[in-house]
Amino acid sequence: MAKERVVLAYSGGLDTSVAIGWIGEQTGAEVITVAVDVGQGGEDLEVVRQRALDCGAVEAYVADARDEFAEEYCMLDLQANGLYMDSYPLVSALSRPVIVKHLVLAARQFDATVVAHGCTGKGNDQVRFENGITSLAPDVTCLSPVRDLALTREFAIGYAEKHNLPIETTKSNPFSIDQNVWGRAVETGFLEDLWNAPTKDVYNYTDDPAYPPLPDEVVITFERGIPVAIDGTAVTPLQAIEEMNRRAGAQGIGRIDIVEDRMVGIKSREIYEAPGAMALITAHKELERVTLDREQARFKARVGLRWSELVYEGQWFSPLKRSLDAFIFDTQEYVSGDIRMTLHGGRAVVTGRRSETSLYDFNLATYDQGDTFDQGNARGFIALTGLTSQLAAARDVKFGKGEAMPKLNLS
Amino acid sequence: MAKERVVLAYSGGLDTSVAIGWIGEQTGAEVITVAVDVGQGGEDLEVVRQRALDCGAVEAYVADARDEFAEEYCMLDLQANGLYMDSYPLVSALSRPVIVKHLVLAARQFDATVVAHGCTGKGNDQVRFENGITSLAPDVTCLSPVRDLALTREFAIGYAEKHNLPIETTKSNPFSIDQNVWGRAVETGFLEDLWNAPTKDVYNYTDDPAYPPLPDEVVITFERGIPVAIDGTAVTPLQAIEEMNRRAGAQGIGRIDIVEDRMVGIKSREIYEAPGAMALITAHKELERVTLDREQARFKARVGLRWSELVYEGQWFSPLKRSLDAFIFDTQEYVSGDIRMTLHGGRAVVTGRRSETSLYDFNLATYDQGDTFDQGNARGFIALTGLTSQLAAARDVKFGKGEAMPKLNLS
Amino acid sequence: MAKERVVLAYSGGLDTSVAIGWIGEQTGAEVITVAVDVGQGGEDLEVVRQRALDCGAVEAYVADARDEFAEEYCMLDLQANGLYMDSYPLVSALSRPVIVKHLVLAARQFDATVVAHGCTGKGNDQVRFENGITSLAPDVTCLSPVRDLALTREFAIGYAEKHNLPIETTKSNPFSIDQNVWGRAVETGFLEDLWNAPTKDVYNYTDDPAYPPLPDEVVITFERGIPVAIDGTAVTPLQAIEEMNRRAGAQGIGRIDIVEDRMVGIKSREIYEAPGAMALITAHKELERVTLDREQARFKARVGLRWSELVYEGQWFSPLKRSLDAFIFDTQEYVSGDIRMTLHGGRAVVTGRRSETSLYDFNLATYDQGDTFDQGNARGFIALTGLTSQLAAARDVKFGKGEAMPKLNLS
Amino acid sequence: MAKERVVLAYSGGLDTSVAIGWIGEQTGAEVITVAVDVGQGGEDLEVVRQRALDCGAVEAYVADARDEFAEEYCMLDLQANGLYMDSYPLVSALSRPVIVKHLVLAARQFDATVVAHGCTGKGNDQVRFENGITSLAPDVTCLSPVRDLALTREFAIGYAEKHNLPIETTKSNPFSIDQNVWGRAVETGFLEDLWNAPTKDVYNYTDDPAYPPLPDEVVITFERGIPVAIDGTAVTPLQAIEEMNRRAGAQGIGRIDIVEDRMVGIKSREIYEAPGAMALITAHKELERVTLDREQARFKARVGLRWSELVYEGQWFSPLKRSLDAFIFDTQEYVSGDIRMTLHGGRAVVTGRRSETSLYDFNLATYDQGDTFDQGNARGFIALTGLTSQLAAARDVKFGKGEAMPKLNLS
Repeated sequence: MAKERVVLAYSGGLDTSVAIGWIGEQTGAEVITVAVDVGQGGEDLEVVRQRALDCGAVEAYVADARDEFAEEYCMLDLQANGLYMDSYPLVSALSRPVIVKHLVLAARQFDATVVAHGCTGKGNDQVRFENGITSLAPDVTCLSPVRDLALTREFAIGYAEKHNLPIETTKSNPFSIDQNVWGRAVETGFLEDLWNAPTKDVYNYTDDPAYPPLPDEVVITFERGIPVAIDGTAVTPLQAIEEMNRRAGAQGIGRIDIVEDRMVGIKSREIYEAPGAMALITAHKELERVTLDREQARFKARVGLRWSELVYEGQWFSPLKRSLDAFIFDTQEYVSGDIRMTLHGGRAVVTGRRSETSLYDFNLATYDQGDTFDQGNARGFIALTGLTSQLAAARDVKFGKGEAMPKLNLS
Repeated sequence: MAKERVVLAYSGGLDTSVAIGWIGEQTGAEVITVAVDVGQGGEDLEVVRQRALDCGAVEAYVADARDEFAEEYCMLDLQANGLYMDSYPLVSALSRPVIVKHLVLAARQFDATVVAHGCTGKGNDQVRFENGITSLAPDVTCLSPVRDLALTREFAIGYAEKHNLPIETTKSNPFSIDQNVWGRAVETGFLEDLWNAPTKDVYNYTDDPAYPPLPDEVVITFERGIPVAIDGTAVTPLQAIEEMNRRAGAQGIGRIDIVEDRMVGIKSREIYEAPGAMALITAHKELERVTLDREQARFKARVGLRWSELVYEGQWFSPLKRSLDAFIFDTQEYVSGDIRMTLHGGRAVVTGRRSETSLYDFNLATYDQGDTFDQGNARGFIALTGLTSQLAAARDVKFGKGEAMPKLNLS
Repeated sequence: MAKERVVLAYSGGLDTSVAIGWIGEQTGAEVITVAVDVGQGGEDLEVVRQRALDCGAVEAYVADARDEFAEEYCMLDLQANGLYMDSYPLVSALSRPVIVKHLVLAARQFDATVVAHGCTGKGNDQVRFENGITSLAPDVTCLSPVRDLALTREFAIGYAEKHNLPIETTKSNPFSIDQNVWGRAVETGFLEDLWNAPTKDVYNYTDDPAYPPLPDEVVITFERGIPVAIDGTAVTPLQAIEEMNRRAGAQGIGRIDIVEDRMVGIKSREIYEAPGAMALITAHKELERVTLDREQARFKARVGLRWSELVYEGQWFSPLKRSLDAFIFDTQEYVSGDIRMTLHGGRAVVTGRRSETSLYDFNLATYDQGDTFDQGNARGFIALTGLTSQLAAARDVKFGKGEAMPKLNLS
Repeated sequence: MAKERVVLAYSGGLDTSVAIGWIGEQTGAEVITVAVDVGQGGEDLEVVRQRALDCGAVEAYVADARDEFAEEYCMLDLQANGLYMDSYPLVSALSRPVIVKHLVLAARQFDATVVAHGCTGKGNDQVRFENGITSLAPDVTCLSPVRDLALTREFAIGYAEKHNLPIETTKSNPFSIDQNVWGRAVETGFLEDLWNAPTKDVYNYTDDPAYPPLPDEVVITFERGIPVAIDGTAVTPLQAIEEMNRRAGAQGIGRIDIVEDRMVGIKSREIYEAPGAMALITAHKELERVTLDREQARFKARVGLRWSELVYEGQWFSPLKRSLDAFIFDTQEYVSGDIRMTLHGGRAVVTGRRSETSLYDFNLATYDQGDTFDQGNARGFIALTGLTSQLAAARDVKFGKGEAMPKLNLS
C-alpha cells in the first residue's frame, strides 16, 4: 500500500530541511517539498531543489512565481491601497496565498492529503497558510511541525548534525526575516522592547534616508490602476516593483516601524521595508484623487480597510475578499494617467498628475479667467444641505441645550 | 426705529474692509465686525479693531481664541486622527466653527439678525460658515457680499480708493492663503495646472526638507490622547502645537499637495502646511496602536473617516458629529504614554513608545525566554476561524468554480 | 431656424398636459412628450399618446418599459435587499432612472436639449429626475414647470379650461399617488399629522390584513438572487412581481407607514404598498442567510445601506452605485434555491428553505447522530478570540476602572 | 490546605446538577453554584438553591437579576435596535453577560479561581460565557464539564440515578430551550432539516397569530429611548417588557425562524420568540425616525450592525462595545415621545407618533397652506449635489462607455 504523502512548504533553511526527515519519522509519510520564488532573492531554486532531495524529500517541486505574484497579488494590493493599520503593505500576507496555491497544486499533482508549513503557533502566517489551504482544498489537512511536532530550533540543530544534513547549523541569526519582491519583514529580540529604536543592520532593501543621493524624479504611467510604464518605458508589474524598489530604496523610502495587532490576539512590534510598494501606493492614491468620483473614493476607503484586514488574516480566497475585489476592480476603470514624483531622503512626493480620464475640471476649479462655475447655485445648495442641522439646532435652542449654546468668551 | 444690524467676519484685509461700507449701502444695516485670533499671525487684534471702526463699523468685536481653538477644536482632530482624504488635517475646516461661535456670540450681544462672511460662492468655507451659523443660531440669516452683493476684487479696489479706506490696495498677491496655528492653506493660479509642482515661495510654515538641519529627537507625552508634555516640560495644547510647528517646521515636515473633492462637487488642487499637526498625529496614531484594543481601533478608523468628512463639510455642530465625538472620547481613555520621534528631512519617524496603559504584552509577544503564549490554542483557533471559508471552498469544488481552482503553473 | 425642443416626462394627467402648452408659451420651444409604462396601470399608452398630441405636443414618445423596469431595476433592488431607512423598497426611486433613460433616448432621437418633468421643488423626485438626466446626458438642461415656471394646480385648471384641453379638471383628489409594478406611494394632507392613522381608502394594492382569506403557501425558486419560478412554474421577473403582488396583496402584506428623511433635508410622512416586493425581499433575505458566507453577508448589509441611500437620492447612474452593483452581483453567485413561505394576514413567513448551494451543513449543525463538529477546537478558539478583551480587562483591573468591576448585587 | 473552589453556572436542571458532583470528582475542587433569575420563569430560586446544596454544592448563590437584566442589558439592545442578522434580538446573548457578572461576583466572594458553565463545544454560549468571564476577571480560568470533562447526557442520567440526585432523569425533552424576559430560543432535532416548518408545540411565549383576539391598541411613551409608560401608566423597563410580552404575545407577535451564522463558523436553524422585544423595537425604531437627525440615523444603523455582532459574539464587556455604547447613548438624547401601535395577528403596526423633540416640521413638510419651504433653493441644491455624477457622465460620454449609454428600446 502506498504511503501517505505530505507536501511541505520549503524555504531551504534549517527548520524546514530538518522537517523533511522529522515529518517522515513522526508520521510515516513521504514528504514532497515545495519552494516558490516570490522574489525573496537568496539561493537559486535549483540549489534549493537539490537540497530538499538530499534531505530526504521524495519529490521537490519548485516554481518561479515572481510574475504571478506581482500581477495577481501585489497589483491587487496596489489597486486597493491595501495598508493594514494604515501602514503595512501586507508584504508577507500577500505572498502566503500564492505559495498556498502552489502547495495545493503540488498536493494534487502528487496525491498528498496533508500540507505542512514551518510556522510557529503564535504568528499570523500559520493562520494564513492553513486558512488559505482549506479555502482552496477543503479536504486537505494542515500540519505545523514546529507547533504540532515540537520541532524547536535547538532540536533542529541537533537533528541536522546527527543526520549530516547539507545545511548550515552554526549561524545564529538574531533576525527573523521574511522577504519578497513587495517588501521585507523583520522581527528581532531587542525590538520587542518598544522603546528601542531600530538599528541600521535591521534594514536591507533601503539605504539610510538621512544621507540620500540627489533627488530622483520619476514619472509612473498607470492604466486601470496598474503601472504600465516608468519614465516612458513600458514595464510589467514585476518590473515596475523591481525598478521602484531600486530607486525608492536608494532614497530610504518605505521603512515602517509599528506596533501591530496580530490575528491571534496579541500586539507585536514589526519592522518592514517596502520601498517600491510604498512609492507605488503613494502615486496610485494621488491618481485616484484625480480620477475617482468623490463618493466612490469615500466608500473605497472603507472597502480598503476591510480588504486589508481580510488579507492580513489569511482570507485571500474567502468569498468576501473576492466580492470586494469585484468592487475594487470596477473602481479602477478610469484610474489611468501619469504621476510625477520626486524621490528623496525617505520621501516619495507627488509633484504632478495628468490624466485623460481626470475628473478635475480646470474651468470649474479656476478662480481666474475661464471660470464656468455658477456661484448662484451655492445659496440653495447650502440652505438645503444645512437644513437638517438647522432643524436640530432649533430643537437644541428650544430645550436650552448647553452644547450648542457657546459660553460667552469675550476678550 | 433701530436699524438692522449685520455681524461681519472681519479679517482686516481689503475685501472685508470694503464690505463694511458696501453692506451698509446695499442693505441699510449697521455693521459690527468680528475678528478672531486663531493663531494666524499677522496684525495685532487692536490694529484690526481700529481699522474696522475707521472703515465704518459701529462696533468691532475681537477675540483671542487661540487656546480655545487649540483645546476644543485642534485636539479633537488629533484624537480623531482627522485627515480628509487621508491627507488634509482640516486646517481651515477646524477654524471655521470657532469663528462661527464668536460670530454668533457677537450677533447675540449686539442684536444682529444677519451674519456676513467674505467667502466666494465656489469654495468650502461659505458652506462651513453658513452651516455652522445656522447650526448654532437657526434664526440667523447669512450673507456673502462677494457672492450675493457682487463684491468683486476689482470693485473692492475702486471702492477703497474712492472712500479713502485705511487699507492697502496695490498689493497684487497671487496667493490665496488661510492660516492658523493648526496649519496653512494656499491656492494659487499656476497650481491649477495639476502638472505644475509647487514653487518654494508657496511655503511659509516649513523649511525645505531637502536641506534639513541635524535630526531633532523629541519625546511627546500624551494623556487621554492629548499632548501634555514635550521633552518632559508640561505644555498646554496651544503650546504643544506651537512647539511642534517650530521644530517640525524646521525639518520641512507636514507639506501636503493634493487634489481634493470639494463639497460643491468639484475637484481642486490644494497645498497645505501643517508641521505640528502632522507630527502630533503621527505620534498619536502610534500611541493608539499600542493602547487601543484591536476591534476598537478598527472601528475608530471608520469613525475617523466619517468624522473628517463631516468636519470638512462644515457639520461641526451637527448631531452626528457630536455623537461621533462621544465615541472618540471614550476610546481615548487609555491613550496615554510617551512617543519618541526623530524629526528630520521632512519625516517624523516614531522610534520608541512606552505606556503604563499599553496593551502590548512582552511575555505574550516575545520569541525569547519568558514566552507565556500557549501555542496549543492556535490549532482550534485556526480550525474555527477558517471554517466558513472552508465550507465555501467545498461548495466551490462541488460546482467546479474556476476562481478557487488554480491553474497549473509549474516551472 | 429650427425651434428649440423640450422633452417632457408626460403622465397623461392635468399638470403635465397643461405643461405642454405652457412650456411652449414660456420658452418658445416645441414639446415632445414621453410616457413610460412601468406597470402603473391606468390608461392605455395609445390614449396617453393621443392626448399629448391633442394638447399640442409635436411628437409623443411612448414606451412599454415594464419588463425592462422589472429586470434591470427591481431585480437589483431585490438582490441588494434595498430598503431605505430599513423600510421602503424604493418604489418611486427605482422607476425614475428607467423613465430618465427613455427621456434621454427621446431627447437624442428628437434633438432636444432640455428635459422637463412635473415634480415640485420640495420632493425627492425632482432630484432623481435631474441628477439622473445629467448623469446620462451631461449636456442636457433640466426644467421643472411647476417649480421654475410657476405652474400651480390652480393655474393648470384655469389653463386647461381656457384652452379646452381634453383632460378632466374637476376631480379634486386628496391623494398624491405614484405607482408602478414594484409598489405604490401615497401622500395626503391628513397624514401630515403624524398622530393620524391611515384610513382604508389610502390603500389600493393590498386588502385589509385584519380580514385575510385562508393562508396561501408559495414556493419561490431563485437563481443567483432572481426569482425564476413560483410554485414550480417558470416566471420572468415581471411575472414574479405581478404574481406576488396579487397573492401577497390579497393577504394585506407590504403596507408601510413611516416618517422618512428626504434628500432636501426635511422629514415627511409616507405610506407605501409593495406586496410583491416585500414578499420577495423576505424570501431573498432568508435564502441569503442560507447561501452567503458570514463575512460576505455582514459586509453586504453595509453595502445595502449605502446602495439604498444612493438610489433614494437619485444616484442610480453614479460611479459608486455601479461599483456597489459589482459587489452585489458577485455575492449572488450562489443565491439559488427554493424558499417556501406562508402568506397570511399581513405576514410573509418563511417556513422552509432548500438549496444545492447552501452553506448549511447538517452534519456540523446537528446535535444528534452524525455530528462531525470537533468540539475540541472550541477551547483554543475561545482563548484566542477572547484574548484582546482579556488583555483589556487586565488593564481595567490594574487601573481600578469601575465599568468592568461590577457592583456587588447579592440577593 | 484549602481546597480549590469552582463556581458553577447552575440552572437547576439535570446536567448542571450532575456537574456539581462530577467537577468535584474530576478536579478535587469544591463547587459553589450560581443561579440567576433573568425572568426565565420555572422553579423558585429557593428550590433551586436547595437542590444545589442537596447535590453537593458547598455554597449556593442565587440572585434575582430581573430588573438589572431589563435595565442594563435589554434596554441597551432596544436603544441600539440590536437585531443580529436583521432578525434576532439577542435574547440569550444579552443574558450571558449578566449571568457572567454574578458568576464573577460569586467567584470573588467565595475565593474561587475557576468558573464552570454547562454549555457544549459547538454553540455560541460557551464563547459568551468564557469571553465574558475573562473580560471581567482576566485571572479566572474557565471550565466546561460537557466539553472538557465529557459530561454527556447519557452519563448524566446514569450518574444522577447512581447517586440518587434529587432531579428528574426520565423526561426526554426533544427541545433545547433558553428563555428569559427578553425572549425565548428553541432548537430541536426536526428543525435541523431546513425544509421543515416549526410545529405549534415549539412556541410558548406567543399564541398563534392566525387566530388572534381583537386588535389591541397601545401607546408607549419613551424617554431617551427607554419606555417609561404604557397607555399612560408609568412602568419600569422590566414592567414594560413583561406587559408587552403579555399583550404582543397574545397576538402572536415576535416569532422568528432563521438560519443563523454562529461564532464557531457554522450555520444553524434557530427559532425565537420575543413578543415584547420585537414590539418595543418596532416602536423605538419609528420614534427614532421622527427624532434622529438624518446623518445620525444613517451612521447609527451601521453602529447597530457592529454592536449586534459584538454582543452576539460575547464581547459585551469589550472596549469596542463600550465605545459604541457611548455613541448610542449620545444619540438617544431626544428619542422621547409617544408611539401608538396596533397589535394584531402577528403584526405590531405603528399608527401614530408624537414628540416634543420631533425633527418633523409640519410647515416644511405640508403641501397645503402654511408651507414655509422655499422651493427656490432646490435648483442650486440639485445642480451641486448632482455635479460629481454629471462630471463622471461627461467622462463616460468622452470615452463612449456603454453602461451609461442606454440602448434604444422604443415601443
